[in-house]
Amino acid sequence: MITGKNYIGNHLVASGSKILKTFNPELNQENDWNFIEATTEEIEKAVQLAHKAYQEYKNFSGKKKALFLNAIADEILALGDTVLEIYVKESGLPKGRAEGERGRTIGQLRAFAQMLEEGSWVEATIDTAVPDRQPLPKVDLRKMLYPLGPVAVFGSSNFPFAFSTAGGDTASALAAGCPVIVKSHSMHIGTGELIASAVIKAAQKTGMPEGVFSNLIGSGINLGTTLVKHPLIKAVGFTGSIIGGRTLFNLAAERPEPIPVFAEMGSINPVVLLPSELKKNTSFWAKQYASSITLGAGQFCTNPGLIIGLESPELNSFASELASEILQIAPSCMLHYSIKKNYNEGQQELSLQKEVEIIAIYDGKIQPNYAPQTVLRVNATEFLKNKTLSHEVFGPFSILVICKSKEEMTTLINSLEGQLTGTIIADSEELNSYREVVEALKGRVGRLIFNGVPTGVEVCASMLHGGPYPASSDSRFTAVGIHAVKRWVRPISYQNWPNELLPEELKDENPLGIARTVNDKLELATAFITV
Amino acid sequence: MITGKNYIGNHLVASGSKILKTFNPELNQENDWNFIEATTEEIEKAVQLAHKAYQEYKNFSGKKKALFLNAIADEILALGDTVLEIYVKESGLPKGRAEGERGRTIGQLRAFAQMLEEGSWVEATIDTAVPDRQPLPKVDLRKMLYPLGPVAVFGSSNFPFAFSTAGGDTASALAAGCPVIVKSHSMHIGTGELIASAVIKAAQKTGMPEGVFSNLIGSGINLGTTLVKHPLIKAVGFTGSIIGGRTLFNLAAERPEPIPVFAEMGSINPVVLLPSELKKNTSFWAKQYASSITLGAGQFCTNPGLIIGLESPELNSFASELASEILQIAPSCMLHYSIKKNYNEGQQELSLQKEVEIIAIYDGKIQPNYAPQTVLRVNATEFLKNKTLSHEVFGPFSILVICKSKEEMTTLINSLEGQLTGTIIADSEELNSYREVVEALKGRVGRLIFNGVPTGVEVCASMLHGGPYPASSDSRFTAVGIHAVKRWVRPISYQNWPNELLPEELKDENPLGIARTVNDKLELATAFITV
Repeated sequence: MITGKNYIGNHLVASGSKILKTFNPELNQENDWNFIEATTEEIEKAVQLAHKAYQEYKNFSGKKKALFLNAIADEILALGDTVLEIYVKESGLPKGRAEGERGRTIGQLRAFAQMLEEGSWVEATIDTAVPDRQPLPKVDLRKMLYPLGPVAVFGSSNFPFAFSTAGGDTASALAAGCPVIVKSHSMHIGTGELIASAVIKAAQKTGMPEGVFSNLIGSGINLGTTLVKHPLIKAVGFTGSIIGGRTLFNLAAERPEPIPVFAEMGSINPVVLLPSELKKNTSFWAKQYASSITLGAGQFCTNPGLIIGLESPELNSFASELASEILQIAPSCMLHYSIKKNYNEGQQELSLQKEVEIIAIYDGKIQPNYAPQTVLRVNATEFLKNKTLSHEVFGPFSILVICKSKEEMTTLINSLEGQLTGTIIADSEELNSYREVVEALKGRVGRLIFNGVPTGVEVCASMLHGGPYPASSDSRFTAVGIHAVKRWVRPISYQNWPNELLPEELKDENPLGIARTVNDKLELATAFITV
Repeated sequence: MITGKNYIGNHLVASGSKILKTFNPELNQENDWNFIEATTEEIEKAVQLAHKAYQEYKNFSGKKKALFLNAIADEILALGDTVLEIYVKESGLPKGRAEGERGRTIGQLRAFAQMLEEGSWVEATIDTAVPDRQPLPKVDLRKMLYPLGPVAVFGSSNFPFAFSTAGGDTASALAAGCPVIVKSHSMHIGTGELIASAVIKAAQKTGMPEGVFSNLIGSGINLGTTLVKHPLIKAVGFTGSIIGGRTLFNLAAERPEPIPVFAEMGSINPVVLLPSELKKNTSFWAKQYASSITLGAGQFCTNPGLIIGLESPELNSFASELASEILQIAPSCMLHYSIKKNYNEGQQELSLQKEVEIIAIYDGKIQPNYAPQTVLRVNATEFLKNKTLSHEVFGPFSILVICKSKEEMTTLINSLEGQLTGTIIADSEELNSYREVVEALKGRVGRLIFNGVPTGVEVCASMLHGGPYPASSDSRFTAVGIHAVKRWVRPISYQNWPNELLPEELKDENPLGIARTVNDKLELATAFITV
């Protein structure tokens, strides 16, 4: 089933000799398959094919691209249980999670397909000519979004389906009209190959040009560097660590022609506990957070790694209850021994900092690659002094920071780097009376949550998954939801262009019936006009 | 009238000692005024004030910000002729041009004010909760655009009003909710001071926080570098040379927290002449282009610096007529002796390249700082070999490139760097039969023009003024039209936020009556709903 080869366009190729293996963290051993790294020539071939495919693919109608995206979803489903089993073997995540994540991945693909079928996403904007305007005639101008070109996608370790081979970056780039070259994540190359086979099958069935998708295998930095520096690659999508994302960002910024990089990177997702709500529902929030911190072995980019409260008896009760609740949860397996190793190192480094108290650490018997959940406590003065304490520890880890006052809380939030999410646990009155705290949090995050947990990223148009640096490399975009497509497109204007040669989206008669802004007036899509 | 000082917030300050002068190119002498460079402390003060002002200004309603923008327009008009006279003394541009450009600047400010009053620009997107969804409830999510923070603006030499102190970058950033610090362009510091005084007066009259606008004087790189590297500056707008824009882009990308830079830089604005249309209207196009190349001494970023045609008798006729027409136009004054010097150097460098023929150069008597219009001719093979030939020569300059075939034309266009505009002179049939040429051009430009000249940038929502690098540093944005605001905002999502504490734009009852997308359905602004 698994060949261990690269997809260079529609072909499985492996002329190289360097072998990679994936790792089964549950069994604590390497998987059997041999994967062959792409050679420099193969990388070049994939890029050339993507460039060539772009010339055709960029002009395909939304309906045609929608067929492709829906076919990818169908072909992924057609892989059946096989891909779930390989996913489990390469991630240590349970099969139920694999199934759920597959559902999310399919859902994303279909959401972009629906967006393409409907068509209004191109932001068609029309200003018609005024030939007799004084002192100069006004020209006819029409603007819409246009794909940037081939996109290199670097998936994440923690979502082998939804943020990887055919995940949100790939789906949104293909929807935009951009061919995609995926660097297969080295922790789940087998899963990646199967998903890639589904994409290729879908491309062939729906008549896509070869090169619209390639899937390359590589360890180390050569593959990534070659892709990001290649003049024919026009944008980059990345999900992973700050160091990885920043490296790609720097490479892209240093190119003779810089290109956009959307990197979704680190976040410790601060949670602010306000006293009145905390007092009312101490146990509820302790349970909620024990569960959120340990969900998926804490391997979510939205894991609540920082909990901020005001010195008080109720915060002490919360701390005790959180500690007791979290220790009742059975530890679970991490994605890879290297991730477990990093977890241990990070958890130990932070635990050993000055004035840090360990309020919970799982010390029962634990299997290899399983993560002992850990909660620390420190006061805000110390947290503010010691930058190490705000480092992300990827895993079931959180640090509770005790503030003396509302002002200290505000200062602490203002001192944080950019975050994917910020949560406020409060009653409505507190939300109002702690306005500075809310404002400070708003300034640091992409998504503000009221009385909930940050884990759980709904896929919908209103979702912002990103945020100020380093949560993402460009806070003006999102990685989740249909607006993720905006990362891969640029507007283009047509001036006085003959109507019959304009793209369908911009023609006078609006043949696609999409929503458009005409002479500063928004007009609804035909489908939305009630007769 | 002119004090020579910096506006640090509402105060005219000049504690420094370094003096700058501006230059009157018509008189070929320095202007009288002494301008004092901002000191490091003054720069810091301006940034701190901007940061403080942001905390308040970002939450102002659209209506309140609109009052401010309209007041700026009013106060600029209230400066009367004085500012026009200083503009003329600092730019060598005629008073009529100053008046026209003032009109454009006022128009831009009012367009953003109108956008703010209407309010739909924030892209409000709402997905309501589905508490009983299986397997998990769906949360309520609401997203809208939110200002990034203080923006540093670097204006251009060639538009002392429209792309400078209170030009498009400033107007769009203020509309977004971002305070602005302008680095006054060193060629028109006097004009800048008067315009800044109008902005400050408007800010005071409409109750804006001090620091919402500052105007700083500086030569060399210290002021610009300090602003772009300052942690409290959150974005940069620039109009000017590639070397200047790229320097700021690099600085911003190297920051611990990288920030967006929108730099509008070089462009030679290729014009493609197709044979049938050219044959029909040789003289018309020769006249049009003689006039477009020399308009404003060729000092437009959309100046047609490259004309591409197919070897043919009609192209020869066009060349002769263009030469004869352009030599009948009286040369005009350039902005500054340094710009004239650069023009001379560039024009000479390109003229001396191998196989380049000068088909027109004004050799009549010419005043100091006036530019002799120049048209060169070369074949495409040579143009493709010699990168020097595609350098921008800022001024009344163009190069005619002769291609042997449609294929060579396509290759040539594909070899170009990114451009603000690309123009096709053709009849409708040719537009269809030269599809590869059009596609190639589309891939290189921000705006495609049919049968016109690239000079003249209409200010409207459908305008794209930008384009692939180096036309701009990020092709996904525009510098002109109300969508220019998108450079300075990021989306933010609210999850399960209490309705009464949501921004007006996102409340259930839609109190502002703006267009919104609710559960994937676009709803028109109240003003647009016909009862």
